[in-house]
Amino acid sequence: MSPSRRQAPVSQIGEFQLIQSIARGFSSRGPRPLVGIGDDAAILSHPSPTHLVISTDLLVEDIHFSRDTASLYDIGYKAAVANLSDIAAMGATPLYILVAIALPSHLKYHEWKELYHGLSVPCKAHAVQLIGGDTSASHSSLFLAITILGQIKPHHGLTRSGAKEGDVIYVSGSLGNSAAGLACLTRTRQASLDKHSSLRQPMKFLVNRHLRPTPRVALGRLLSSHPFASAALDLSDGLSGDLMHLCQQSRVGALIQEDSIPMSPHMTAYASQIGVDPLFWALHGGEEYELLFTVPRKLQRPLELAIKKLRIPMTAIGVITPRRTGLRIAHQDGTTHKLVSQSYVHFSE
Amino acid sequence: MSPSRRQAPVSQIGEFQLIQSIARGFSSRGPRPLVGIGDDAAILSHPSPTHLVISTDLLVEDIHFSRDTASLYDIGYKAAVANLSDIAAMGATPLYILVAIALPSHLKYHEWKELYHGLSVPCKAHAVQLIGGDTSASHSSLFLAITILGQIKPHHGLTRSGAKEGDVIYVSGSLGNSAAGLACLTRTRQASLDKHSSLRQPMKFLVNRHLRPTPRVALGRLLSSHPFASAALDLSDGLSGDLMHLCQQSRVGALIQEDSIPMSPHMTAYASQIGVDPLFWALHGGEEYELLFTVPRKLQRPLELAIKKLRIPMTAIGVITPRRTGLRIAHQDGTTHKLVSQSYVHFSE
Repeated sequence: MSPSRRQAPVSQIGEFQLIQSIARGFSSRGPRPLVGIGDDAAILSHPSPTHLVISTDLLVEDIHFSRDTASLYDIGYKAAVANLSDIAAMGATPLYILVAIALPSHLKYHEWKELYHGLSVPCKAHAVQLIGGDTSASHSSLFLAITILGQIKPHHGLTRSGAKEGDVIYVSGSLGNSAAGLACLTRTRQASLDKHSSLRQPMKFLVNRHLRPTPRVALGRLLSSHPFASAALDLSDGLSGDLMHLCQQSRVGALIQEDSIPMSPHMTAYASQIGVDPLFWALHGGEEYELLFTVPRKLQRPLELAIKKLRIPMTAIGVITPRRTGLRIAHQDGTTHKLVSQSYVHFSE
Repeated sequence: MSPSRRQAPVSQIGEFQLIQSIARGFSSRGPRPLVGIGDDAAILSHPSPTHLVISTDLLVEDIHFSRDTASLYDIGYKAAVANLSDIAAMGATPLYILVAIALPSHLKYHEWKELYHGLSVPCKAHAVQLIGGDTSASHSSLFLAITILGQIKPHHGLTRSGAKEGDVIYVSGSLGNSAAGLACLTRTRQASLDKHSSLRQPMKFLVNRHLRPTPRVALGRLLSSHPFASAALDLSDGLSGDLMHLCQQSRVGALIQEDSIPMSPHMTAYASQIGVDPLFWALHGGEEYELLFTVPRKLQRPLELAIKKLRIPMTAIGVITPRRTGLRIAHQDGTTHKLVSQSYVHFSE
């Protein structure tokens, strides 16, 4: 590409050329659409008897991301993960995405390509194809609305509403890393990162968890395969908020154990350095994209055996209780308290 | 609802309540999703052997609509039509929509309800259910990204790429009404509408075509049923631009007849009153949501017989020619000229 084109505002490049230039970057594995990008709609042949899973996610500049702490590649990458994570939380296999994007007209062509490159990387890793979308100018901020489709065996979808009293509550991975990573990015610039030599590795780890979260697609598929899980969702709002969603929709309560909540040593080290309670990040920090799920007791052992092959860490953090008890947390000193969601609410911005 | 809630900014009402309050307004006819709004994703059982048709459309404030000339009800209504029209252009039956919306936080709850009410009316008319979405604040403009799903019999989808030399080019309805209606809205306020008594009826008609276009769902289904049409798309960019898309993707040329282009007497009356060439609006005006389609000569007669039952006006306006001849228009004086697209391009804004 000529240097002048790289620097050209996207407004000077036609929508058709923009579309052509991105479709090539996505996966060509997996079932191909009968009609893909470039028509009024895409057409998919859908192998019966699978069911279709579909979700839409909106990302708005200065609400969901800031260009001060994330590059366009980062924004695209995370947008793809957020969508893949919704499909993972249903226990389904992702197949296709459609991308609607409103671009500030000052954005350069190469920046726009970076955004799509970021989008394409997690999609390629999961053989997800781009089958449609819409592109427009924006007089103000950058907006991204992604629709993702996946498939699942009939009656194997993991909803939020199936948790029963006595089920064990699990989370994958460790919690609070994304919130800690965002704190690193907002508090410390690259220049000063080098100065904190003992914290350099932890901070790199945390920033990476914030910018490059892992969608738990393989875990979701395992949880829906038996099915092992009675309910599941992904941690996008934070453990306290998402556990509240699960309990509301399952009409149950929950008791979690403070000392069971998985936290990375990197996160606790950084939290203690800057004087933050690591439990606050682990309970309320959003954008983890780990799975929160419930498992009937009799399936605990077979699940724990099955999960060893996937090498995905998961931790039992509590138990489902009757609805009337609400959400509670048991502390290390033996006391229990009501767990109040302090998750990020986009409308409170 | 209490008056105070009606006037409350949407930012003070939780996302969950917003979602609950809209889901009720949509259709409950048609095949129900297995899992609808409120989970990480919706789950659909998809009756084989039909194929799935899916499209995403983005609407951005001050690019696609202006709140000076359209109410929130109008904006919602037209957004639904634009999406239904994409499904109509494929010859498919619309089933479900997902709505991603970024709302300026100053927007009142009752305004937000008006937007969804506008969205729900054309959806209800076509038994389309709301199965998911995402809602966020916006620090700037209003953004709407709608994904629509439909179904079609295998190998019956109408693409843009099937037109062959010799096929007859048709349009439904009459052209230029939407552009003329927008001119009415921007040039004339309601107060002065009354003064132009002879134009009052034409202007009401044109404004209505601009704000309440008709998605040609029944026509699309008829065209795909035989299938009668070799190619189709909906007129969202304007005849000149959309015919160019069709010719590019079918690798053909086209010759249209100026005196065949259907124009309403209301449109020509208003155009002559304000000194605009009505042909300009008919050729280049966008947002018609009429269908442009091509029909093999041998199917012309059976199609014209079949269409009588639907009572949808359609007009043969030209013929598909070899690619090398490009797009041409034959004038009433017998001369022909190259037809150059002057359609609205969102990026040139």
